[in-house]
Amino acid sequence: MSSIENPKAVVLVSGGLDSTTVLAMAIDNGYECYTLSFDYGQRHRSELVAAELLSKSLGAIQHKVIQLDLGAIGGSALTDMTIDVPEPQETTENGVIPITYVPARNTIFLSIAVGWAEVLEAREIFIGVNAVDYSGYPDCRPEYIQAYQAMANMATRAGVEGCKLTIQTPLIDMTKAQIIARGIALGVDYRATVSCYQASPEGLACGLCDSCQLRKMGFKNAGVVDPTEYQK
Amino acid sequence: MSSIENPKAVVLVSGGLDSTTVLAMAIDNGYECYTLSFDYGQRHRSELVAAELLSKSLGAIQHKVIQLDLGAIGGSALTDMTIDVPEPQETTENGVIPITYVPARNTIFLSIAVGWAEVLEAREIFIGVNAVDYSGYPDCRPEYIQAYQAMANMATRAGVEGCKLTIQTPLIDMTKAQIIARGIALGVDYRATVSCYQASPEGLACGLCDSCQLRKMGFKNAGVVDPTEYQK
Repeated sequence: MSSIENPKAVVLVSGGLDSTTVLAMAIDNGYECYTLSFDYGQRHRSELVAAELLSKSLGAIQHKVIQLDLGAIGGSALTDMTIDVPEPQETTENGVIPITYVPARNTIFLSIAVGWAEVLEAREIFIGVNAVDYSGYPDCRPEYIQAYQAMANMATRAGVEGCKLTIQTPLIDMTKAQIIARGIALGVDYRATVSCYQASPEGLACGLCDSCQLRKMGFKNAGVVDPTEYQK
Repeated sequence: MSSIENPKAVVLVSGGLDSTTVLAMAIDNGYECYTLSFDYGQRHRSELVAAELLSKSLGAIQHKVIQLDLGAIGGSALTDMTIDVPEPQETTENGVIPITYVPARNTIFLSIAVGWAEVLEAREIFIGVNAVDYSGYPDCRPEYIQAYQAMANMATRAGVEGCKLTIQTPLIDMTKAQIIARGIALGVDYRATVSCYQASPEGLACGLCDSCQLRKMGFKNAGVVDPTEYQK
């Protein structure tokens, strides 16, 4: 898969279902993939272990983990241990941005991906935002991605020299069920992925949080047996 | 200076001449300033010590240092110990982006500032980019800042809720001499600032790199005695 002629891509991977599917899709499309994860003070590290294993098993060239203490700026239940991850019914009100939103997370992650892409001379960055993820997160909307790409092309040597950088969001219009069906077709082993907002240190999903609920529903709607071990 | 009615601002500070002047200007304009620095694998830490001291002495409410290993993505003489900081004549060719450029640095720093601004409910971010700094760095151009601001207003809760975030660049059209004159008028003690790309662990400037040359010339053109101790 990795000849010298294949284009390079940086792929943001969290160890979760969506970004793992994105990685499988990018590799299937012939990209030499450099995967990037962040140790950003999230509640559990099992997703970083999953990101490393999945990067290797799917055939990424290199996986990098950047240490970044987002907990230092606070503001989210996902990085602040003093804020509880809410029960699902607390986050489903329309138009309300949930407390699990990490301020500017995609913006920060994409920015470091842009830096690495510049060093690698990669022209593509893949990120697993999708329609379902836009449950009130402003940085999962297509118009945000467009604005980000425009900015990135002003920010970089590549942009100045006329080589366009593209932010690829192959999942943006897909439902969770469609994502799962696509990943299964590409041979993704979803057992190894971690979606839960509050997984155990071993990566065991809680079965109750928003992310677990979306995942369960996705497998059900895709008509595929859910290989995940849930605590509840 | 810090009453409850003053607007909040996040100010990116490096401990250098430019960002210190920006901080003094923001405080002079009545902002409650929250200063942000990065321990990003730069060649010397003396600038972080300077940023802390200057934040305090100028009256910032809080100074935060975020650990972020930009050296892990490589590509710059400022973070990669295997690349030498060039002599001035090597970087002055028109249109060539110098090797001291750190890939996507301003984009990364601004993104974390956006995250903190969101947590603080601050609507202003100050950054010390200026006309002189745009010696081939793509992320110091006014059109880049405009694109960044447009993106940031798509990315955030504030943007979605209609509160505009502004990236303030008060130095953008100023020469180094004008910046120094403004800072002197505001009582900035430039002895405490560190501009050098390769300062000694104690903060002693080399006197030879691009940044030292610009600084020397700035004081000369401003008609102000340069308080900096240079090695050469």
